[in-house]
Amino acid sequence: MAGPPRAVAVLRTAVRPGLRGSDRPVLAACSGGADSVALAAALAFEARRAGVRAGGITVDHGLQPGSAERAERTAEVLHGLGLDPVLVRRVAVGPGGGPEGAARTARYAALAAAAVQLGARVALAHTLDDQAETVLLGLGRGSGPRSVAGMVPERTADGTTWWRPLLGVRRATTREACAEQGLPVWDDPWNADPAYTRARLRGEVLPLMEEVLGGGVAPALARTADLLREDLDALDELAAAELARLAGADELPARELGALPAGLRRRVLRGWLRAAGVPDVQAVHLHAVEALVTHWRGQGRVDLPGGAGALRTSGRLVLSPPETRGTRPEDAPPTREESRP
Amino acid sequence: MAGPPRAVAVLRTAVRPGLRGSDRPVLAACSGGADSVALAAALAFEARRAGVRAGGITVDHGLQPGSAERAERTAEVLHGLGLDPVLVRRVAVGPGGGPEGAARTARYAALAAAAVQLGARVALAHTLDDQAETVLLGLGRGSGPRSVAGMVPERTADGTTWWRPLLGVRRATTREACAEQGLPVWDDPWNADPAYTRARLRGEVLPLMEEVLGGGVAPALARTADLLREDLDALDELAAAELARLAGADELPARELGALPAGLRRRVLRGWLRAAGVPDVQAVHLHAVEALVTHWRGQGRVDLPGGAGALRTSGRLVLSPPETRGTRPEDAPPTREESRP
Repeated sequence: MAGPPRAVAVLRTAVRPGLRGSDRPVLAACSGGADSVALAAALAFEARRAGVRAGGITVDHGLQPGSAERAERTAEVLHGLGLDPVLVRRVAVGPGGGPEGAARTARYAALAAAAVQLGARVALAHTLDDQAETVLLGLGRGSGPRSVAGMVPERTADGTTWWRPLLGVRRATTREACAEQGLPVWDDPWNADPAYTRARLRGEVLPLMEEVLGGGVAPALARTADLLREDLDALDELAAAELARLAGADELPARELGALPAGLRRRVLRGWLRAAGVPDVQAVHLHAVEALVTHWRGQGRVDLPGGAGALRTSGRLVLSPPETRGTRPEDAPPTREESRP
Repeated sequence: MAGPPRAVAVLRTAVRPGLRGSDRPVLAACSGGADSVALAAALAFEARRAGVRAGGITVDHGLQPGSAERAERTAEVLHGLGLDPVLVRRVAVGPGGGPEGAARTARYAALAAAAVQLGARVALAHTLDDQAETVLLGLGRGSGPRSVAGMVPERTADGTTWWRPLLGVRRATTREACAEQGLPVWDDPWNADPAYTRARLRGEVLPLMEEVLGGGVAPALARTADLLREDLDALDELAAAELARLAGADELPARELGALPAGLRRRVLRGWLRAAGVPDVQAVHLHAVEALVTHWRGQGRVDLPGGAGALRTSGRLVLSPPETRGTRPEDAPPTREESRP
């Protein structure tokens, strides 16, 4: 008995492990493009075998003429694959964050709402090539190792589980799989519009890197992201354990903090500030608090976002609550009355 | 009193902290290009003020006509800066590893030999832009986070200390500094030859990334490398401590290993195999040994490079010495005699 064509088999193999032993329904998010149509087809096939309920959802962003008809055609494809239920959600795209960002925000909100309603996980069709682009975007931002670690294969946030079973599958393979199954796909014009950063990474930067670095760049980027994620997860886990061990009565002992490797110490301090409810901790705050440990020369209170402050006293780091006075001492010298003990 | 021009000040500020409190001589490695001439000038100035002896060295690879004369001219520049001693080393470039790699190998060997002779550190002129290229090269290889963490500001290997004080300085600033001081520089034709990967990263890939990602890409890559290096150093340090804690009588307890985060566990296992003298441990070996912990189903001895083997017995990982028989059991079934208890 001949098996399915190669690309179809690759897609099915990619989604299979995540369906085994799960009893939660899956909702395939589908734009009508090759990646997500191939994902929907593989999920429909494998979910049936695994005894898992699988539905599909497509989002109409209402940004282009004919978008509603396109959403309906995508829904027909999902119906044809045997997915149930098949949902079409029309969203209102807000003005913030550029057209790409605003559409994404609206889309994810609609996907999360549908998933909560059905008690389902959402399956997203990001491929290995998307992962490589994400790593390059993270590198370009320079916001640290975590942004280079790429997308996570499965992650639950705010009650919604996002599952990305295709992070190891090439984009070309999803196109092949659709062709082999005679599935109609629609090329998102946004994906080819060179005005968008991601589209230019895909169409110009990655091909040039492939040429210069001798091929295999996208898999190399994705592999680096995997290894990096494992390392960063380990450090985060170790830092959480260290924080639990050290933080007695909301204080941290300076000497023990000083003995930790810098990468671990900073995570412990960040976790401590977060646990205390300090909002929006930036690198500059973290460095100032760390200096109370590593460059201690009797400096005073470190002001933190939200009004709280960190200070070192008797060899311990403590947090002081927000000051109730509206001004800080250096902005306005204390009046005679304020400076009373 | 007016200070030095901006670029000259940037270079001097970059080398100053590394000279403070040091009594070891410094040897500036100089190709005659702008980066290393600017470094030599800054070192000559700041070393004098810090009371540190500073010399210079240039290497003649003998690969181009006139290379000996060029080395002499570079030596004259170094003399003119007041460096002492000034060394010219002629090296024989071997055939291995491509022309770029072979020249580098020969050059570093000559630098190390001279440094050992003088008891000096070697100062290398790698800039922020070189760091960005190194990060991209590491990404292209996909050999893991450490290869993306770039070059280290100071590191001692095999008795030689390599110091890179310019990793935070842009290449353009070194050119400016040379121009401002009227220093002659020579553009290495290799650096502009698009046949070389690094030259193409510099001349094509990074400029395109700058354009697509909106600028600041090289500093972002360098910043990511710094943060990543700190995280990886922390993990390495924690793994060494964990190995010292766990490894009793050359054995490792499987249960404790199983409780460690994967990124830490793998480092502990790698350190254990290295300490036992297992040569050339690859990811495939590490995974097989790790499976004795994480996917234990009674599997047998894991063969390792060099002939040793790892096995799990009574809840402990132990290493068995190289087998003296030429064949492994699965290659040739045991004879009646061998299979005796």
